[in-house]
Amino acid sequence: MSLPKTARINEVGPRDGLQNEKQMIPASAKIELIEALTAAGLKSIEYTSFVSPKWVPQMADAEEVAAGIQRQPGVNYQALVLNQRGLERALAAGVNSVGLVVAASETLNKKNMNAGVQEALDNYRPMLAQCHAAGVIVSGYVSTVCGCPYEGVVPAEKVLAVTKSFLAMGADDIVLADTIGSGHPRQVRELCEMTLELVPAERLGVHFHDTRGMALANSLAALEAGISRFDGSIGGLGGCPFAPGAQGNGATEDLVFMLEEMGVATGIDITALIECARLAERLVGRPLPGHIKGVKKLFPSALVLGNN
Amino acid sequence: MSLPKTARINEVGPRDGLQNEKQMIPASAKIELIEALTAAGLKSIEYTSFVSPKWVPQMADAEEVAAGIQRQPGVNYQALVLNQRGLERALAAGVNSVGLVVAASETLNKKNMNAGVQEALDNYRPMLAQCHAAGVIVSGYVSTVCGCPYEGVVPAEKVLAVTKSFLAMGADDIVLADTIGSGHPRQVRELCEMTLELVPAERLGVHFHDTRGMALANSLAALEAGISRFDGSIGGLGGCPFAPGAQGNGATEDLVFMLEEMGVATGIDITALIECARLAERLVGRPLPGHIKGVKKLFPSALVLGNN
Repeated sequence: MSLPKTARINEVGPRDGLQNEKQMIPASAKIELIEALTAAGLKSIEYTSFVSPKWVPQMADAEEVAAGIQRQPGVNYQALVLNQRGLERALAAGVNSVGLVVAASETLNKKNMNAGVQEALDNYRPMLAQCHAAGVIVSGYVSTVCGCPYEGVVPAEKVLAVTKSFLAMGADDIVLADTIGSGHPRQVRELCEMTLELVPAERLGVHFHDTRGMALANSLAALEAGISRFDGSIGGLGGCPFAPGAQGNGATEDLVFMLEEMGVATGIDITALIECARLAERLVGRPLPGHIKGVKKLFPSALVLGNN
Repeated sequence: MSLPKTARINEVGPRDGLQNEKQMIPASAKIELIEALTAAGLKSIEYTSFVSPKWVPQMADAEEVAAGIQRQPGVNYQALVLNQRGLERALAAGVNSVGLVVAASETLNKKNMNAGVQEALDNYRPMLAQCHAAGVIVSGYVSTVCGCPYEGVVPAEKVLAVTKSFLAMGADDIVLADTIGSGHPRQVRELCEMTLELVPAERLGVHFHDTRGMALANSLAALEAGISRFDGSIGGLGGCPFAPGAQGNGATEDLVFMLEEMGVATGIDITALIECARLAERLVGRPLPGHIKGVKKLFPSALVLGNN
């Protein structure tokens, strides 16, 4: 196995994880979580989104969270925006990095953004220029890269086309997001290999959901393709607590643990990260699906006779 | 990705899955599950173990289960045995396939079998000959291949040594079992590649537990090494319901779904297999951790704005 020697994790739990929570999580709790994550060694955190509070009430406190976090040097604080209004709010709040999202599938884009793929990209072009003028880094998120809830499996050509458009308008980074968690390792491997012909590895990330339990396997497939940037959600935050089976992103601690075990350095303190997962569980008031509960848990106990 | 075109799944839920259940599952329920699994297309099922009812009370009904199942032609019905007494019971019950287990780590073997690795192998030699004389297939299970609860990480040389001994005494198949679920994909890939130099792929299987959430990723690593035989446990049965984090084997339906999505044919009807997972949940009276709840579940619903 020839693998990257290091990996960078972008923690999206405070945004992609919490946005589907029905109970309102106070801004102070989000700030506590974000700071614990930073203290554990995360160098990139998607900490909120500046979107309509009517559609995503959980993120209505974006300004409050942005104002409350103690910015650490060397940490990328990313916020998601979807339109000009959101960008104005984000810039006013002092973000240093934004994510712009375009689905690779026409239908989802139209339903979510009232714009087709090309129109959405056209809308982003001046916003991207505005970000660069303000010294803000832009990650172009290509969503539904494996499958769309309306169109089914999404052909790689559509993903590559959106990627090229994002690059042509100057996006700093590209992230391939398997929004609904429908991808499988062969698809992910091939998609990553094709995209790496357009984008250097240090500018290309992946974002998996664990809907079908394949987030880690897909991360492995991406890693083997040469990918070294991964989104993760602490504890596996996300999905909807009232719809079992609607899963969040792969758990950051499971991903970091696997990478470190395989010799891929993340710079993250796994013990502190596991404590962040426990904190996230306290915030949402229920157990989260991440598997790694403690690094020494495996080696103290006997097994029953016949266990193999 | 150059992968095997087909894979054979050995379902171990009725044995490795159920053996840790505190509540007694009636033999009739086990038989119902085994027959549903066979109807779904499983061609190999570890249906019970002939071990001491004092240590594993859940398997005390081994004879009743063996007598109750309707044997289907072309299906391998495997039972686990650990000593001569168990083998006599298994042969009297008409098994056509047995699994013999030796840990690759000295300490676990001594604690579980009151015998070191070599002594355990020596004890099995006449049993293996007896099986062959009776026309019974023998799978040599090498357990703790990645880690031992007492010794920590297990070096590959120990695994290869036990494998060679099993082969030398005529074992038909070898199965590498990551008993405690401590393995990671790089370790699994390397171990499989080394073992494939001793055993042809059609005689080598792997057995993963999902303790750290890596069962599917480890299965992928094994598949990429050329492995095409996998143990799985329906629904992810196993572990201990009273000790969260003690996980069972990887869920059969998640494994089969991933393989089929990747173009590796299993011959299993995934819809019927998912129904088996629901049946297993009814038997144990709680939700099981397998992720695949329905094959068409992903594509009917809208996503909230800003989900990426």
